[in-house]
Formats: sequence, C-alpha cells, structure tokens
Amino acid sequence: MTDLVLTGIGQLVTNDPQRDGLLGLVDEAAVAIKAGRVAWVGPERELLRELRDLPELDCAGRSVLPGFIDAHTHLAFAGNRAEEFARRLRGETYEEILAAGGGIHATVEATRATDSMRLLDSSIQRAKRMLGYGTTTVEIKSGYGLETETEINQLEVAAAIDDELAIDVVPTFLGAHVIPKEFIGDRAGYVRLVIDEMLPAAAPLAKYCDVFCDEGAFTVDEAREILAAASGHGLRARMHANQLGHSGGAALAAELGAVTADHLDNITSDDVAALKAAGTVAVLLPTVSLSLRLPAPPARRLWDAGVPVAIATDCNPGTSYVENMQLVIAIASLEAALSPEEAVWAATRGGAMAIEAEDKGVIKPGAVADFVVLEADSYVEIPYRPGTDLVRIVIKNGKVVAG
Amino acid sequence: MTDLVLTGIGQLVTNDPQRDGLLGLVDEAAVAIKAGRVAWVGPERELLRELRDLPELDCAGRSVLPGFIDAHTHLAFAGNRAEEFARRLRGETYEEILAAGGGIHATVEATRATDSMRLLDSSIQRAKRMLGYGTTTVEIKSGYGLETETEINQLEVAAAIDDELAIDVVPTFLGAHVIPKEFIGDRAGYVRLVIDEMLPAAAPLAKYCDVFCDEGAFTVDEAREILAAASGHGLRARMHANQLGHSGGAALAAELGAVTADHLDNITSDDVAALKAAGTVAVLLPTVSLSLRLPAPPARRLWDAGVPVAIATDCNPGTSYVENMQLVIAIASLEAALSPEEAVWAATRGGAMAIEAEDKGVIKPGAVADFVVLEADSYVEIPYRPGTDLVRIVIKNGKVVAG
Repeated sequence: MTDLVLTGIGQLVTNDPQRDGLLGLVDEAAVAIKAGRVAWVGPERELLRELRDLPELDCAGRSVLPGFIDAHTHLAFAGNRAEEFARRLRGETYEEILAAGGGIHATVEATRATDSMRLLDSSIQRAKRMLGYGTTTVEIKSGYGLETETEINQLEVAAAIDDELAIDVVPTFLGAHVIPKEFIGDRAGYVRLVIDEMLPAAAPLAKYCDVFCDEGAFTVDEAREILAAASGHGLRARMHANQLGHSGGAALAAELGAVTADHLDNITSDDVAALKAAGTVAVLLPTVSLSLRLPAPPARRLWDAGVPVAIATDCNPGTSYVENMQLVIAIASLEAALSPEEAVWAATRGGAMAIEAEDKGVIKPGAVADFVVLEADSYVEIPYRPGTDLVRIVIKNGKVVAG
Repeated sequence: MTDLVLTGIGQLVTNDPQRDGLLGLVDEAAVAIKAGRVAWVGPERELLRELRDLPELDCAGRSVLPGFIDAHTHLAFAGNRAEEFARRLRGETYEEILAAGGGIHATVEATRATDSMRLLDSSIQRAKRMLGYGTTTVEIKSGYGLETETEINQLEVAAAIDDELAIDVVPTFLGAHVIPKEFIGDRAGYVRLVIDEMLPAAAPLAKYCDVFCDEGAFTVDEAREILAAASGHGLRARMHANQLGHSGGAALAAELGAVTADHLDNITSDDVAALKAAGTVAVLLPTVSLSLRLPAPPARRLWDAGVPVAIATDCNPGTSYVENMQLVIAIASLEAALSPEEAVWAATRGGAMAIEAEDKGVIKPGAVADFVVLEADSYVEIPYRPGTDLVRIVIKNGKVVAG
C-alpha cells in the first residue's frame, strides 16, 4: 500500500517552517499519505472523513519523525579494520598503524581485491541495518577504488542497493579520496587520471563529486581543478574539509558554492562566515570524533552562526563504523552541544538539505512519505536513552518496510 | 535443553586466568554444557566424542563471550524525565531543574505513586531489552521509595523479574539514596527510619546494602552507621562514592571492606591505594558521564593501580537511561581510555567480581553457562561498531533465550 493514514500520533515532528518552533511539532496528529507522498498533516480531530477511509496505522500515542537522512557515508567497502582500531585504542600511533599495513590503503586494497557480488553482499547488509535503525535515505561515496574499475564498482553497488532495498541512495564520486600508493610521487598524474578517465566514466552513476581537501590528501588547487571538471559533467560539489587541519577546504567549498562542507573540525571565523554566505551545508560527523577519541566537531558554533547543520554517520571501516543515526543524534547532543531538537533536525531536515531534497526531511503536503515511528512518546528519548533502539516502525514512500 | 555443545566458535573469550592474556582467548573453540553449567572448554579439535553427541549450536566462526553482568542499575522506577534531560541539554542548571520539580525527587514521587503491577510492567520491559542486548545478570537497587512500603515494592519487583525472565537479578537495598523531602531538616530521623524500620523489612529481599555517600546525600558517619546495621542483617556493603565530590565515600568503602565502590569520579591517590588494599571492586559508569556531559571516570588510573574494575549502565531515569552493555563497553573504550579487551573484561568478569559471583563472567568447567554469541568474529567489534546491536544469540544456563 502506498496510501495510508497514520493516526494516534502523540507527537509529530514535521520540520515545517510554517509551523511553530524548530521542529514544527504537532500534538495528537494524523498524517494522510496518497501514492507515497504526504497528502495531509494536522491535528487528528481535523482529519477529513474521506482520509479516514484510507488503510490506517494507529501509532498509539507514539512520536513520529521524518526518516533519518544519512548524508555522508562510505558504506560500500570490503575488509575490516577492527584490529587496527584495537591497536589505536591501545595507544599505537597512526604512523605505526600505516607501517603495519593499516589505514585507508588497507581498505583500498581489500575493496579492489573483492568481486562486485561480495562487495554488494556486505554493503547491502549495512544498508539494511541502517534502514532498520530508521535511515530512509543514505548518501554513498566511492573512493576505495582509486582506479576506474573499482570506483565504478562502488557506484554500481550504490545503485544496486537503491534498487534492491527500500532505502533511497544518493551516489557520490570520490575518486579524489587520497593519492593511491602507486601514484605517490606523481600527484599530478593521479589528478589527471581522476579528471580524464574516472570522471567521465563515473558521472552517469553519480549525483555529486566529493574531494578530500585536507592535509595529507588533496590541495586546494587540486580540489578546485577536479571540482571544476566535475561541474562540467553535471556533478555538484561536496567536500571533505578541514578535518585534519586548517586546509583551506572550507573556504574553497564556500568559494565554489559547494552543496556541503563535511567534517570541519578545524575552522576559523572567516570559514564560518564564508560557509554561511555561500549557503553551504555543514555536514558534521560526531561519531568520528568519538571513534578517534578527539574533541567533538564545532556544531554549536556553526549552528549559532546560522550555517545549516546536518549530522551523519560517516560509516566507514577506519574512523567511524557506525550505521545507526540514533547514536549520531545522541552523540551530537551529548558531545557536540546541540540540543535534542537541533540534533533531530540536523539528522532529518539538515540531512535533506545536504542532498538538496526539498521533499524530504519534512512532513507536509507533497513531501515523500518517509517516517519513523518511535517506541517512545517524544523525540527527546533518542539522546535520553542512548544504546536502546527506539525505532519501532520505518515507513518508506508510505509503506511499512521495517519493524 | 540445558545440555548443549557450542561448536564453530571463531574466538572464545573465557576470562580464565589459567589461559593466556587478560581474556584467555581460545580460537576455533568448542564449549560443552551439561545441566546449565560449563562441562568442557577447549579447541574444537580436542572435543571428546561423547560431548559431540550433545545438542549442537554451530556458531559459524563467530565470537562468543560470557554474558554481560550489569552490576549497578536502578531499573525499577516509574515516571520519565526526558523533559528534564532536554532542559539540561539546553543549558538549565540542576538547581533550576530541581526548582521546576525535576531531579531524583520526581522519580521518588512517581515510584511511590505507581502500583506494584505497573512498576513491574515497565521494569520488566527494561530487563527484557537488557537481556536481548546480552546482559545475563543484572543488579537492581531500591532507593526510589525512601519509605518502607515502596522500597519493599522495588525489591519485590526485582525478585519478580528474576522469576519471570531468564536474566538473573541481584537485589540491593538502597534506602539511603537521598534524604527524602519530608525529612529535610531531620536527617537523623531518616537514618533511624532506615536502620530501625526499612533494613529489617528489606534484608530478607536483598543481598547487599548500598549507601549514596556523597555531597548532598549521606555523610561518612551516616553511611558507616547504616552499613554497620546492614551487616548485622547479613547484607554486605556497596557504596555510591565520590561521584559529586571528594566525599570520603571511597575511603569508607575501603575501610569497611565493601564489595564495591561505585562512580569514583573524584578520587585521590590515597583512595586508589585504599581500594586496592581492601580488594574493593571499582564499579565505573561511563554512560553517566556521557549523559551528564562530564569527563569520563578515571578507569585508566584505577586499572593501572590494580584495582579490579567493573563497568555498568547505572540504568536510571535521571543520569543514564541506558540498557545496553554494548554501549557501555564502547564508551568505556572510547571515552574512558580502556582498551577493548579491558572494557570487555570489566563488563563480564569485572561485573561478576562486583556481585561476588565466582562462577560467572568466566567460561571454564563448573561456571554458569551464560554466553553471548556475537554477529562478529571478534569482541573488538563491540567498541569498533558502536550503535549496532552485535549480539546475535543470548544463552542463559545453557538455553538459548534471545536472538
């Protein structure tokens, strides 16, 4: 069924700016869905008789939110770096770990070595768990191939997940993730490969082009050149920026009008002002800081400056093997100083802005009918009860798909 | 069935000090269970033929651990303090929250006002979720009655959970949790009530007596008097100590040879030395610090000094509404500087020491057959993949009870 009416909603988070407060809460609400989109939202007592005749799901006083939008993941990977993680927690340095064959190059090697079916198998399991935890749209980046064939494999896996699961996938080409081992000493050669060979092949499979513009990855000039070429292929820009240092990435994201600047752990007041002026969305990744035992990203500062903030898992095998947006909301509140409502907004409407989805992350007429029904009567319970899966039912395009 | 043989265990955490390393790991292992207890442990190739004929559970290469032991909870409560939590995260002070009717007194009021059946209903749901997340033994404290009838109700709820669910419950009397409102101005009167009326009534239902010995709660002299009386009723001592300040609680715990000293956020080198000499177990509660946005407990310091460390949820509606020991392991590693193996030990063998269970938290002949089978091939994945429920199967007394 893609027609449905949700009744008995104790607390509805609409994120509709036409309503009161950040989350546009409606109490004792109902939502009617026709053909997978929201047809009507409001207090249940105002529900029209004709909508009452739709197939009904009684939410029994529970809280209903837009489905979570995870706007930054690298979930299409092979291999496992649990042992590297353990070594790091025992005090080894990243240099020692790299020397022992760990780090991102280990994932590149494993992802190149696996076949497409196995890559799809493990990736789809991750996406399925994400959906079960309430994520209805997920961005997936390539970037563990660093050569054309595997980059394309990753993007095909992203497309296959979109086809096979109810979750929506937004694919991003990240050939410029890091300089691969075989090009160390020939950075310019790798940039040419990305621009001349990978981009033309990847563009039909991707919506965005991302570049890791940071210390140890790509320079501002390299990133500018790659993103200009991507723009020529119709791919808008996202950017890994200022995670490791004051790299100039955030300023470049603003200069280029990138859709997002992600990480942003090291930013100046000028960076913040530039992102605000550009309308670039800050995609913050609080579980990366958690996993790396580092200070939380500057969520409060960006939010207070008026930069739109999204939060995401960064699901990847090295620095944040996280699949659950409920944990991201909790850590954003508890470690990155967002209030529960700000964190919930950033995981829903903020995530939608980060993928330019006007009709997601919001519950109003015309929006895609993607919801989570909580096993709780308030969204506050998500950070209040960390570690407990509070998503009871997941609804995608008006259909119950999990729970 | 209480006879069972687990085969195909890729990695077995035994915690057996006779084996190598902190966790006494055995690879490619098997465990035989007879009458709910471990009969044999070792490499599968050495499994005797007669044990091969037991009913078999093939673990398909997964990691198997002792069931988690959650040695500090207040799970038998009524009411909900999500709104207070949200106010705190928006920046209100504890004083403002108390003035608005929040804080522990709100839970005392709600727990006094509820009836026994409703208290059991909500509490048993929490215990059931805990069991599903891998906790096979849970300590439950009273302390939200602060008058005899409700304290007894809470202990009866603890007993009912033990009867009705597979999870084992260790009951603790905590009448001296805080001075109730009606005794403010008559501390001595409340201490007399605890000693003369509550303790005799509670003793048959409890294994331990706990006192919150800290700033704003009970003084060292009051705690000493209450715990001495408890000892006369056969109840050994636990103590909430040094959470809020340098209260003298840890030193008193050591002086009395208490089984545990819990929280310990503010301790001196003398406290550490005294706990070590006394053999008192430090029960640390890292998700309390997370929920309160405070620095993590000094796990590293206590561990390095040789004090036995347990980690627990402190499940309660004010400062740590956590039901999932997997999250506690992750936060202990990521925020409190334990290694993954130390955190896993503290959640299993450390927890068992904190409830004086020689035959739990360890997998060796004669031990209670309480295990979790992970959806992973290593215990490291628990902190490596926070937010994902990695417990696939829970086994209690040799029976599959969840998953």
